[in-house]
Amino acid sequence: MSEAVEYDVVVLGGGPAGENIVDRTRAAGLSTALVESELVGGECSYWACVPSKALLRPALARADARRVPGLAGAVQGPLDTAAVLAHRNYWTGDWKDQGQIDWIDSIGAHVYRGHGRLYGVRKVAVTSPEGEHHILSARHAVVVATGTRAVIPDLPGIAGARPWTSREATSAQEAPGRLLIVGGSVVAAEMATAWQALGSQVTVLARGSGLLPRMEPFAGELVADALREAGAVVRTGVSVEAVVRDGSTGPVSVVLEGGETLEGDELLMATGRAPRTEDIGLDTVGLPAGRWIDVDDTCRVPGHDWLYAVGDVNHRVLLTHQGKYQARIAGAVIAARAAGTPLDTAPWGAHTPTADTRALPQAVFTDPEAAAVGLTLAEAERAGHRVRAVDYDMSKVSGAGLYADGYTGRARMIVDLDREVLLGVTFVGPGAAEMIHAATIAVAGEVPIQRLWHAVPSFPTISEVWLRLLETYRG
Amino acid sequence: MSEAVEYDVVVLGGGPAGENIVDRTRAAGLSTALVESELVGGECSYWACVPSKALLRPALARADARRVPGLAGAVQGPLDTAAVLAHRNYWTGDWKDQGQIDWIDSIGAHVYRGHGRLYGVRKVAVTSPEGEHHILSARHAVVVATGTRAVIPDLPGIAGARPWTSREATSAQEAPGRLLIVGGSVVAAEMATAWQALGSQVTVLARGSGLLPRMEPFAGELVADALREAGAVVRTGVSVEAVVRDGSTGPVSVVLEGGETLEGDELLMATGRAPRTEDIGLDTVGLPAGRWIDVDDTCRVPGHDWLYAVGDVNHRVLLTHQGKYQARIAGAVIAARAAGTPLDTAPWGAHTPTADTRALPQAVFTDPEAAAVGLTLAEAERAGHRVRAVDYDMSKVSGAGLYADGYTGRARMIVDLDREVLLGVTFVGPGAAEMIHAATIAVAGEVPIQRLWHAVPSFPTISEVWLRLLETYRG
Repeated sequence: MSEAVEYDVVVLGGGPAGENIVDRTRAAGLSTALVESELVGGECSYWACVPSKALLRPALARADARRVPGLAGAVQGPLDTAAVLAHRNYWTGDWKDQGQIDWIDSIGAHVYRGHGRLYGVRKVAVTSPEGEHHILSARHAVVVATGTRAVIPDLPGIAGARPWTSREATSAQEAPGRLLIVGGSVVAAEMATAWQALGSQVTVLARGSGLLPRMEPFAGELVADALREAGAVVRTGVSVEAVVRDGSTGPVSVVLEGGETLEGDELLMATGRAPRTEDIGLDTVGLPAGRWIDVDDTCRVPGHDWLYAVGDVNHRVLLTHQGKYQARIAGAVIAARAAGTPLDTAPWGAHTPTADTRALPQAVFTDPEAAAVGLTLAEAERAGHRVRAVDYDMSKVSGAGLYADGYTGRARMIVDLDREVLLGVTFVGPGAAEMIHAATIAVAGEVPIQRLWHAVPSFPTISEVWLRLLETYRG
Repeated sequence: MSEAVEYDVVVLGGGPAGENIVDRTRAAGLSTALVESELVGGECSYWACVPSKALLRPALARADARRVPGLAGAVQGPLDTAAVLAHRNYWTGDWKDQGQIDWIDSIGAHVYRGHGRLYGVRKVAVTSPEGEHHILSARHAVVVATGTRAVIPDLPGIAGARPWTSREATSAQEAPGRLLIVGGSVVAAEMATAWQALGSQVTVLARGSGLLPRMEPFAGELVADALREAGAVVRTGVSVEAVVRDGSTGPVSVVLEGGETLEGDELLMATGRAPRTEDIGLDTVGLPAGRWIDVDDTCRVPGHDWLYAVGDVNHRVLLTHQGKYQARIAGAVIAARAAGTPLDTAPWGAHTPTADTRALPQAVFTDPEAAAVGLTLAEAERAGHRVRAVDYDMSKVSGAGLYADGYTGRARMIVDLDREVLLGVTFVGPGAAEMIHAATIAVAGEVPIQRLWHAVPSFPTISEVWLRLLETYRG
């Protein structure tokens, strides 16, 4: 191996979280190296958020158009699936990352392509695809941002069944005739929405009692109802016991508990995520391999004052935007510590990702969209808050009815009765994905209910649901 | 005339503002009478917000769909204009108000149909369409909520030209072949968008230098560009000097300064609003007829401790949602004064409509949508604030590009550099109408910039423009 090359900061993993660390540490004038074994841009850019939204947007736009008198007649036919897939390919850069590399170059950071592993304290070893080795040493910080990979349960027959994960589901170049989806969370719900609209006959097999289990129960119910109305089969409370696939191109079957067998052309296993920490040298610094990396409230690993973990891999939140948020904050932390300036780690301070626990937003691009921020009713009650859940049927909002004939949606806000602020908000309905940011500002801003009365929704928008929620709370 | 019938509160005018006064005073247990000379529900329900949005939504949904690969091909054709107009008729209840009357009945208020006039202190005289007379007396308050009517300038030839106002433009039962629109504000821009999409050849003739003069200049520019792209003619800085129409069904012409003549099949004069106060008995209490009614910060008329004015007629703001807001507050004021309980008229208190001046939102349903809250840059500078305008090209937001191929839009936030809060925000682009409520909460909530960093926009939404604005401000 060559001499160690020294940087202020070395980042392992070039997804959105890693890229934001690079951005912030470079802005602070710290020399920074980024190590990436696949594509700079990460899962989000190539096999998750971006291609999934490119597949979903046409489905949602068609659903919206079908609810508009005077336009509905024109959009009863199928989507042009080839055009949608080609557009999705465009958005992934055909799975090439030159644009991201150019950006990294432009801010003066250095990219090492290859597999990176911790190599003792403050050191990272990189093995390039060509077999070259580099040792990088970090004056101030090594940041692990290696993210997650899909987990496929070890079912009988699964090995030979070549199941899809989120990667194949977002990058497939044609619509399967029949798509079986095992799982009930966001990946399952979104990919069911997309592929059913793109021509597949989708069957969703969820083990839990409903879809979208991290959200208020009505979110999964409304999404399941709509998937069924779109022609998909949605079954909850079912357990897949085995998978069967004969040959290389034939159909695939799943065997349910009880023996029922369902056949499809492809099988998507949307069954969770695991940290990509198996082979990144954690053992060389005394940390267990293959596990989530615990961090403190500055995203630093306790006991290792030079080691940070941001994004999925620290298991605080498995969402791109929140990994970026952590990275912005951890980048500022690293820069402050390097400069010897004090940190503000009080709640909502500049150096701690308070929103991870208190104002976490998520948007699910199903039809209807489901979006939420902060705590659900159950979470708030478990946390010991004295709360009231305030519900409103969004179809009764004039702006909703004018937006879509037969608008279906529901809103809930969780009021902290002691402080009269919002702990959480959920919107389910067309348009919810963009509507949730208002709630994110209200929750993160801890804007008192009394002041929210002065935040007047424009008439006639769907956002007038805010007024209805306040009126319902007032009683 | 009969004996006076006594109520706690008498409301003149049953539009949204009047209805909200009724709602709030009834909730406080005050007996309330509502006098309405046309339709309960007012301009908004029959000749403004509601029918205009019903006409616009199909235009905007088609524009959205045309920007989505895989769907665009299906929506190149014209809208089904008859279906759109029929749906608009449905939303206006075919210009019948029984639903609203039922609601008023259900909350125990009394409706007097007819023309109401102040009849001295605390008294209102009503003349019903059948010629019956009633005298209503108000123990606590008379509230004027008579709204506005369209103003048509006294041009040569205008009397015989039967021009449209906003009423005809929102209630027409067929699309004119060629529609001339004089004006450049919201009514002009929205009706141009609607009728151009519904099959008319629209020409907009604005006297000012751009459309939407109350907003940041780029709003009108982007809307004008899009109207032109949709096939409309938009001319600014032009002055109409005369109007010519011969016969009852023939075309109508406008003569511009300089002599140029333009011909259309209908002519919409979108040239402003005047208060409906000419014939409501203001003279009987010493107030001038035909003028806007000045009010204090509780919406009460100075010198008349029993008289209030809410909504358009007090000229604070000419927007439905803000009239409703004033009415909720004035209703609470009247109830508190009736009960002898103290008022909270400090800024953002429960008894003063602070948002009228500090967090006023507006959404314009053009394509692109234009929405704003609070102060523009020019307004903030005129008010003496030390500010910085932060701009961002919304087409560069991933969520915008994924929402619409070729997304065009722009965002601006006005930062108060002394307090590090937002004084105003403008979004122009598809989706802006629902996005603005986040800004309304930020401005009304006076959420500090430092806290807004913890309000994380979900990826990939258009709302991620918030992150870009913050990053741009940080520099």
